[in-house]
Amino acid sequence: MTLTSAGPRSAVRAPFGPAVALACRECGTRTSLGAHYACLECFGPLEVVYDLRPVTRESVAAGPQSIWRYKDFLPVPEDVAAAPGLQPGLTRLVRADNLARELGLKSLWVKDDSGNPTHSFKDRVVAVALSAARELGFTTLACASTGNLANAVAAAAARAGLRSVVFVPSDLEDGKIITTAVYGGALVAVDGSYDDVNRLCSEVAADQESWGFVNINLRPYYAEGSKTVGFEIAEQLGWHLPEQVVSPVASGSLLTKVDKGFRELGAAGLVEPTPYAVFGAQATGCSPVSAAFAAGADVVRPVRPATIAKSLAIGNPADGPYALDVVRRTGGAVADVTDEEVVEGIRLLARTEGIFAETAGGVTVAVTRKLLAAGLLDPDAETVLLNTGDGLKTLDAVAPVVGPTATIDPSYSAFQKAGLA
Amino acid sequence: MTLTSAGPRSAVRAPFGPAVALACRECGTRTSLGAHYACLECFGPLEVVYDLRPVTRESVAAGPQSIWRYKDFLPVPEDVAAAPGLQPGLTRLVRADNLARELGLKSLWVKDDSGNPTHSFKDRVVAVALSAARELGFTTLACASTGNLANAVAAAAARAGLRSVVFVPSDLEDGKIITTAVYGGALVAVDGSYDDVNRLCSEVAADQESWGFVNINLRPYYAEGSKTVGFEIAEQLGWHLPEQVVSPVASGSLLTKVDKGFRELGAAGLVEPTPYAVFGAQATGCSPVSAAFAAGADVVRPVRPATIAKSLAIGNPADGPYALDVVRRTGGAVADVTDEEVVEGIRLLARTEGIFAETAGGVTVAVTRKLLAAGLLDPDAETVLLNTGDGLKTLDAVAPVVGPTATIDPSYSAFQKAGLA
Repeated sequence: MTLTSAGPRSAVRAPFGPAVALACRECGTRTSLGAHYACLECFGPLEVVYDLRPVTRESVAAGPQSIWRYKDFLPVPEDVAAAPGLQPGLTRLVRADNLARELGLKSLWVKDDSGNPTHSFKDRVVAVALSAARELGFTTLACASTGNLANAVAAAAARAGLRSVVFVPSDLEDGKIITTAVYGGALVAVDGSYDDVNRLCSEVAADQESWGFVNINLRPYYAEGSKTVGFEIAEQLGWHLPEQVVSPVASGSLLTKVDKGFRELGAAGLVEPTPYAVFGAQATGCSPVSAAFAAGADVVRPVRPATIAKSLAIGNPADGPYALDVVRRTGGAVADVTDEEVVEGIRLLARTEGIFAETAGGVTVAVTRKLLAAGLLDPDAETVLLNTGDGLKTLDAVAPVVGPTATIDPSYSAFQKAGLA
Repeated sequence: MTLTSAGPRSAVRAPFGPAVALACRECGTRTSLGAHYACLECFGPLEVVYDLRPVTRESVAAGPQSIWRYKDFLPVPEDVAAAPGLQPGLTRLVRADNLARELGLKSLWVKDDSGNPTHSFKDRVVAVALSAARELGFTTLACASTGNLANAVAAAAARAGLRSVVFVPSDLEDGKIITTAVYGGALVAVDGSYDDVNRLCSEVAADQESWGFVNINLRPYYAEGSKTVGFEIAEQLGWHLPEQVVSPVASGSLLTKVDKGFRELGAAGLVEPTPYAVFGAQATGCSPVSAAFAAGADVVRPVRPATIAKSLAIGNPADGPYALDVVRRTGGAVADVTDEEVVEGIRLLARTEGIFAETAGGVTVAVTRKLLAAGLLDPDAETVLLNTGDGLKTLDAVAPVVGPTATIDPSYSAFQKAGLA
């Protein structure tokens, strides 16, 4: 047998692994794999499409202890794990019996993404975007962000040896400036709102050919990273799908990708394609998807955010309509809770399971309670809550309501008088 | 065959697994397994002794994704993983090629314990202490702490359904109060220094029969948890020992237990017992072990701490002499660095590897640089640095020196003028 000059198919390095094209989620028009994010026909958002190879539970289990064990479902090359990155994923799936008892649920798990390298699920999406940036020849990794994404991009670029440029509103809290700037990339404070920052970044992305904005021109790749939350839940449950999932909703992308991940596992034969319902959680101060769900509307009307759950404060969520589709198709629901309920949710999760979540996690816990009270969540069904971030990043939310139980002199008699024994 | 009423040995539940006694590290006198921590003969510290069963690499690999995969080397029952806990461990061992290049090392890894549930290595020791508390019938888990330990105890007790009482100095930063109080246990602020708090806790421990203080009357069990850092390093290196390890030194316990872990793996035949050198890292503002090493002394003279590396600020380190023994036996060294060097160390690790360490991690990186410059670390030997905690907990250390690269108006012309393109 003589090989042609191109060699057999398997010998050709595929920079995007099993991904074969980008396709418009609205009209289906296909585009080649590149730094494209909007359909040239209808301006609809693009999504990665695959020609998936056979995958087994054993091949996954033999993979790395990170999201790269699911590389056969992602737009990344076969050797992605060897490239320098933060290796996020395979965070704990915590059996939450104490919280289940308090909420009146029979079987509850918390997928705790605060265990990722920069302590939010954003490390997953940035890792996939970083791989795409590398393969597309970008030398600068960029984003607009007000928190978790900024941390994740700056850290991942540092480790990968890429330059990073992170754009933030100039009125951001000092803490968030520090946790991004410490990684040594460029941090640009923009005098304006987050919407202003975003608009500027779209302009920059259009003009700077060597810059990959993870959530603009790399967005189709980036978004696929969230599927790994779904993959891990199924694998950690012993290769089955849960019956209910409650996900926070910011852009709506995470919720839709967990659903996509579940469907891909079913199609690949890695799990039985059993039915499941997907639920969305928002803060009342930024609840456009919840409002649309309640109104039975298909269109998500933008709002101006006003909530302590800043990582969910996207007033015009790009994937809102798709999130509604998933929720309705699976028989789920979307609800929202007040900032007071968010704080209560954070405290409830901390005191029952020892997990200190950021405000988004408080939203998810509080919405779960609300959906149960409304009879929309089935208390007997196996349920998974997503905690997407870390309470250390949103200390201000709980600062007013937690503190010392007692303040005493350093003497045993003072201890005895305090009534703690 | 007729079983006696007690049944065969394997049918008896051993609350401390392979542990058979406590023994004095000074005079060797044995004591039964219980809430003892000082030798009745000579007041020396007690340590767990084992009758280890055969362990294979396969049996470890088949274990849980936490420290409990090493349960056969710990004073915990066979079913420890089934009890509610935070399941710490199996944190990332990060290949640090960028940092290696900057430091002039050939082969470098960072064991990144910021990935633990409450983001420090204290989750490991608390998990083992919690198991002992449960087996000994304690109903309250307690500690004196100024930071990481407080977080770890409060979180672990919450999840385990035990009451917690954490004692802290009343002048502690608000952030540290919040991150402990959020778990809902009792938090006692004591008007006094950390030494005052510690003294009070020893009194309380002696008097409250149902209270397990993790680092007082449960200390022998607690300390064993640090061996898992050594076990994981060896397993993650593909079952071999590194040639050099650099560990921060507070009480000195972690350093000695990593060494103990390495020796136990060698004795169990899980690794070749190849030679290794253990190095200790302190901040100059609290460097009693480093001073003793430099002076060639066996005795560690107490100091009054004054350093930003607060998690290492133990002026009278209980395990200081044992840490010196390990360092000298293995051919290592101890050094210390200024607070400015600590901050530089944090920034260096962040910008090269995307790991944001707390001050203790900065100490370790900076001491590594210093030991290399002094010719005490071999630049050609495979080296592992321990990062024991998370930069999110010590933001103040870097706040004065990191910030935005530029502040601009939200316009493309302003972006162009900033010179970032």
